[in-house]
Amino acid sequence: MSRRRRSGGRRARAVARAAAQEMRRSPFLTSKLAPYEVLSTEGLEIIEHNAETILERVGVDITDEPAVQTFREAGADVDGQRVRFPRGMCRQIVTATAPSMFTQVARNPEKSVVIGGNHLVLAPAYGSPFVRDLDKGRRYATIEDFRNFVKLVYMTPYLHHSGGTLCEPVDVAIPKRHLDMVYSHFRFSDKPLMGSVTAPHRAADSVEMAALVFGEDFLEENTVIMGLCNANSPLTWDKAMLGSAREYASRNQAAIITPFILAGAMAPVTVAGVAAQTLAEALVALSYTQLVRPGAPVIFGSFASSLSMQSGAPTFGTPEPSLTLFVLAQLGRRLGIPFRSGGNLTASKVPDAQAAYESAATFQPTLLAGINFVLHSAGWLEGGLTMGYEKFILDSDQCGMAEALLSGVDLSENGQALESVIETGPGQHHLGTAHTLANFETAFYRSFTADNNSYEQWSEEGSLRSVERANSLWKKSLADYEPPAIDESVDEALQEYVVRKKQTYPDFEA
Amino acid sequence: MSRRRRSGGRRARAVARAAAQEMRRSPFLTSKLAPYEVLSTEGLEIIEHNAETILERVGVDITDEPAVQTFREAGADVDGQRVRFPRGMCRQIVTATAPSMFTQVARNPEKSVVIGGNHLVLAPAYGSPFVRDLDKGRRYATIEDFRNFVKLVYMTPYLHHSGGTLCEPVDVAIPKRHLDMVYSHFRFSDKPLMGSVTAPHRAADSVEMAALVFGEDFLEENTVIMGLCNANSPLTWDKAMLGSAREYASRNQAAIITPFILAGAMAPVTVAGVAAQTLAEALVALSYTQLVRPGAPVIFGSFASSLSMQSGAPTFGTPEPSLTLFVLAQLGRRLGIPFRSGGNLTASKVPDAQAAYESAATFQPTLLAGINFVLHSAGWLEGGLTMGYEKFILDSDQCGMAEALLSGVDLSENGQALESVIETGPGQHHLGTAHTLANFETAFYRSFTADNNSYEQWSEEGSLRSVERANSLWKKSLADYEPPAIDESVDEALQEYVVRKKQTYPDFEA
Repeated sequence: MSRRRRSGGRRARAVARAAAQEMRRSPFLTSKLAPYEVLSTEGLEIIEHNAETILERVGVDITDEPAVQTFREAGADVDGQRVRFPRGMCRQIVTATAPSMFTQVARNPEKSVVIGGNHLVLAPAYGSPFVRDLDKGRRYATIEDFRNFVKLVYMTPYLHHSGGTLCEPVDVAIPKRHLDMVYSHFRFSDKPLMGSVTAPHRAADSVEMAALVFGEDFLEENTVIMGLCNANSPLTWDKAMLGSAREYASRNQAAIITPFILAGAMAPVTVAGVAAQTLAEALVALSYTQLVRPGAPVIFGSFASSLSMQSGAPTFGTPEPSLTLFVLAQLGRRLGIPFRSGGNLTASKVPDAQAAYESAATFQPTLLAGINFVLHSAGWLEGGLTMGYEKFILDSDQCGMAEALLSGVDLSENGQALESVIETGPGQHHLGTAHTLANFETAFYRSFTADNNSYEQWSEEGSLRSVERANSLWKKSLADYEPPAIDESVDEALQEYVVRKKQTYPDFEA
Repeated sequence: MSRRRRSGGRRARAVARAAAQEMRRSPFLTSKLAPYEVLSTEGLEIIEHNAETILERVGVDITDEPAVQTFREAGADVDGQRVRFPRGMCRQIVTATAPSMFTQVARNPEKSVVIGGNHLVLAPAYGSPFVRDLDKGRRYATIEDFRNFVKLVYMTPYLHHSGGTLCEPVDVAIPKRHLDMVYSHFRFSDKPLMGSVTAPHRAADSVEMAALVFGEDFLEENTVIMGLCNANSPLTWDKAMLGSAREYASRNQAAIITPFILAGAMAPVTVAGVAAQTLAEALVALSYTQLVRPGAPVIFGSFASSLSMQSGAPTFGTPEPSLTLFVLAQLGRRLGIPFRSGGNLTASKVPDAQAAYESAATFQPTLLAGINFVLHSAGWLEGGLTMGYEKFILDSDQCGMAEALLSGVDLSENGQALESVIETGPGQHHLGTAHTLANFETAFYRSFTADNNSYEQWSEEGSLRSVERANSLWKKSLADYEPPAIDESVDEALQEYVVRKKQTYPDFEA
């Protein structure tokens, strides 16, 4: 044994540690695995053909007058709000100028992320009016909850992006809420973020605040903020969403164009039907961003799940949305732009076994599908109605595992470990071999939420369920939180902007 | 709307229903998805080369004298218990005669399963000394628990195989236990089963009892029982396991040859190292079955997980075993024989979120890896030490989802649903369209354990966690159970065999 230890163990350990640090330093993931594909080129062509047929024969309703006008000038057939597109028109516009990959610069440039190609960026859940924790149960979210989740995202290395509406701070008036949210992201985190999309002027405020942080000129050349623009499926784009997309695109910022489809309600019940309609809807808004500003970064997104045909409720973690995800990711690669989907999704009200099965049955395919940007990677409960503190912790542990999976199989000499198998031989354990000693620190992902101890030890420690362990973990994370540095003048400019704008907005939406 | 309903809705509904029934009738799954592959041919060749190097330079220790003798005669280099193999020898023996696919005939021939190719057979968990339910907690398993699980497996359409040691009936003496287990499978189920492997004579008893059910001659031509033969990794095969493999193979029954490796303990910590050692170990016993009886059905198995390098406990649902699984399934396809792995695995003591994340993070890759036989698909807790009643129900629901996933994307005209998208148009919902009405019954897998209702309804119904819903479900399943018919003379012959053999065996192992 001592001989083995001498033979290179120390140097190998140092190399392994350096490699591990190198890995940990990356602010986003890069996959060495080929994306999993469920359809042949012929199958994908059928769906693309159907999408073009939908755009040509039915078209979409657009309630945003400037967008209608832009499409008319670009060659679309306009009849009131109904806009029909010659075959291939939208696709041609997108492929001509939309970038295949772009960098979203973070306030801390070391946390900037590359979106597209074989890169993966994980972002937290988005949009819940409620929060839940084990102590206080389910309740309306407040701005304090919002800040808490900004801090929790900041504290975990496994989420690369601060997200956007981490929860709805319902204690702040709707017309003013976006200002507090964008400010909180900038002040309490230094990761890349998403701005508001609930109205074009709120999108404009978000970009304006980003300009205060990065400088007006910087934005012209760099993407620093993104907005999530959902279609009103089926086949409708409204003022708020297209108008917000215009605000982001016109200033070189990224819109995430996402048809939001519960199959059976907003689209047919079949995978191929959902995929064709999603592609058609997306092509409209994707091409619009390129008409607004050729070359503006834009992401093809999909949120697709099924409807319970008994209760009418959305369901998650079932096989049909997995297939839809694989198909749409393939279609995204053929379109040549980054693709976005959802992460750890569930309909469960609490972080129980249902929540975890459904989340993992969404997240595992997500990791293998070759997605570029994953929203809702952590925290999501109850079909998105609730952001869960414990669920956030449990999901972020799953996010942590993505890196090792996507790193694929190490076929280096150290990875092959042939000499170690030969030296150790039959019937001897590998616990203390030089190879094990050199590699054990970095060999396996270490879950920080799983209990792998014996039954006896687990019992002695109180027979805790994972939700109970997670409860301690988010509290510790918040207790350990220290805000990142921010330039005082930038902070003042942001605060001044928030105060000034709040004075101009009413307390209730008109 | 009424026009749409008339236009083919009724006929389409009938077609969809018939298709669904056809699907449900299949006693095993057939995948239309290509298996996911993580290594190139070159990568696989490196691992195969390393496996041959291990067999050539180190070899394996074999404590079974007849097997050593057989290998000597076949050309291996024997030095006491150490047996080394010329490069390619084992592989050549396997590929020359081992079938790429075989049918395991069930007592009810409608439940016979095809193992190999693009087929998937799901079997329950195996080998736990403990059982657990929500009412009585964790306790030693009894023969009553064993029978309960035979019945629960019989009752679910989502498990295709009755399995083997569903739990250890510790209230029956070890030397007699296998008789009660095999009898219970035959009497309380009519699905295919696994026999004993804890000693060669117990394997022989298992095959003998199968012969009482099917007839001696039938066994010569058909496979009706399987045995699970694990290596003593690293690189050791013992009397019990190789002797049992011999009993099964010699009578044309199937051995599942499974290196059982916790990386870091029984093998190096790397994926490529585990894969090479697994392949080497498996090739020895696989080839032995073909030397015993050329053409005997045999399965290449792997049970591979990681060791917590802190506590020494096995861990599950982490990324490294997923990569190992993908690699070994690829190696299995290159070997041209069926491949077996584990299913819904977890280290959690209870069916909480940890259990479900870990299970799904194992099961989802399993479904995409192109596995043929999945043991431990339902019930497994605590690293296999406990068989859980509620976990069984929750896992079997996940198993139910496999069919829809593996069916892939329907690109038929009905699957494309193009006309329905066009007819429905922008802003209209799809809930009542002819296409939805024609397809909704079969469109989506319906989970029987998930609660997708509103928070309010869920609260009114008692705010049940999924484990609590599962508690009711296994009780209802047992209450609804009715035994399958069995020929009275067969039952008598089995019972007589059990009684007679029990008299000849001691109450304690020698």
